[in-house]
Amino acid sequence: MTKAELFSQIKKKSSFLCVGLDADINKIPKHLLKEKDPIFSFCKEIIEETADFAVAYKPNIAFFEALGTEGWETLQKVLELIPKEIFTIADAKRGDIGNTSKLYAKAFFEKMDFDSVTVAPYMGVDSVTPFLEFDEKWVILLALTSNAGSMDFQLIKDEQGKPLYQTVLEKSQSWGSDENMMYVVGATRGELIGEVRKVVPDHFFLVPGVGAQGGSLSEVAKYGMNSTCGLLVNSSRGIIYASEGTDFAKVARKESEKLQIEMKDLLEKYL
Amino acid sequence: MTKAELFSQIKKKSSFLCVGLDADINKIPKHLLKEKDPIFSFCKEIIEETADFAVAYKPNIAFFEALGTEGWETLQKVLELIPKEIFTIADAKRGDIGNTSKLYAKAFFEKMDFDSVTVAPYMGVDSVTPFLEFDEKWVILLALTSNAGSMDFQLIKDEQGKPLYQTVLEKSQSWGSDENMMYVVGATRGELIGEVRKVVPDHFFLVPGVGAQGGSLSEVAKYGMNSTCGLLVNSSRGIIYASEGTDFAKVARKESEKLQIEMKDLLEKYL
Repeated sequence: MTKAELFSQIKKKSSFLCVGLDADINKIPKHLLKEKDPIFSFCKEIIEETADFAVAYKPNIAFFEALGTEGWETLQKVLELIPKEIFTIADAKRGDIGNTSKLYAKAFFEKMDFDSVTVAPYMGVDSVTPFLEFDEKWVILLALTSNAGSMDFQLIKDEQGKPLYQTVLEKSQSWGSDENMMYVVGATRGELIGEVRKVVPDHFFLVPGVGAQGGSLSEVAKYGMNSTCGLLVNSSRGIIYASEGTDFAKVARKESEKLQIEMKDLLEKYL
Repeated sequence: MTKAELFSQIKKKSSFLCVGLDADINKIPKHLLKEKDPIFSFCKEIIEETADFAVAYKPNIAFFEALGTEGWETLQKVLELIPKEIFTIADAKRGDIGNTSKLYAKAFFEKMDFDSVTVAPYMGVDSVTPFLEFDEKWVILLALTSNAGSMDFQLIKDEQGKPLYQTVLEKSQSWGSDENMMYVVGATRGELIGEVRKVVPDHFFLVPGVGAQGGSLSEVAKYGMNSTCGLLVNSSRGIIYASEGTDFAKVARKESEKLQIEMKDLLEKYL
């Protein structure tokens, strides 16, 4: 998918919502466990009910990988369910030396047909660029994550006082462009999103941490939005596990619509 | 596997060789392509011929993942072929927020029965510790890798002049112990292995980069060996692709034996 196509979706739906498919067999409604493939049934209903309000879906690959080969089959089937105009993110946090990263890229971009994959930066340029060699496919590079451990290394300042995440942003900008690279920027620190936006004016950010992890959507929009929106805000648990009953998909619909309405206002305010 | 059991294998075989199973469908001998599962057949012959000289096998997960669900089935079958007394490494470079890392850990330690998995440190403590909660299972944390891109971030000095890889080593030592954590330390910089050894006296290092990538085995042993050897030196291409003919496994045997003989001398010299 191109950046223009993504932005077009955002405008059409007045939404920059990404629904995270953290499909956990221990958390999905119990009535689904009698289905042949409970995770597939769960994702299918979630997608059907939220597709009107979402511009992206982000399957968390670990949740499928943990189920073994059957999990990979389920992931493939789930991916095929997602309407073509919606951006898909393989949240896999991959990254290895060149020939190996190329194989991960093939797994997600050719064997499966994801639009993007999340990649960890620690191994540097040759672990990231193999993912950038595919037309209309995207790398979403970890910059500033929303977990507690993000403080361990990402905020370490170098001899010039520059935090590591900023060096990641600066160096990686020359590896790709805002047409094939995005950044993961956690929502739990509103003002830091503004710092990141100064360094990276044009790129999209994938923003986790809104909702369950405590981030504020209005802060994210205030500090992070740019002229092509530039934001995909992810919500997982707050949508997909909003109800444990047979009404889970309808409740997910309501929760995603609530976010979309809030996003519509923010788009009108800042775009 | 415990550290004592690993060291016992090293002494028994006079070897600290890890054979990297980078089983690439485009590189394996052509005559195998007529087999039902060429990658499995390739790995089977390699393992049978090199098991006398190897104390560890390291399947590169990307090579299996790139083949889709069939690849995961092949990986499971390959893992089952490896003799129980040999240490197994899922070279997967995983790492995500806590609940997700726990699922990756389950995938490699429960769904499959790997002894260890390689993990990327960028997301910090809560992305690593979920892997440490399994008895006799190991995290092998990326510290200083052997690729060109390792220069991009791993060598960045902080305000006290300490390179990032050293902070990774120092902080992560409190997350686990030398009984459940190892470090990836590339061989392409002999003297740097000595620097790492000073910071981490007791942990095992997984050392890539010997052979094809230009690292010297004798330098690695000189700077890196400790009283329990403390080294697993990986060779992939130099062994598994030493011949493209029907004799590939026999040639792999010879190449691994060559390394084992060199390792025997080094163990006698430094242990």
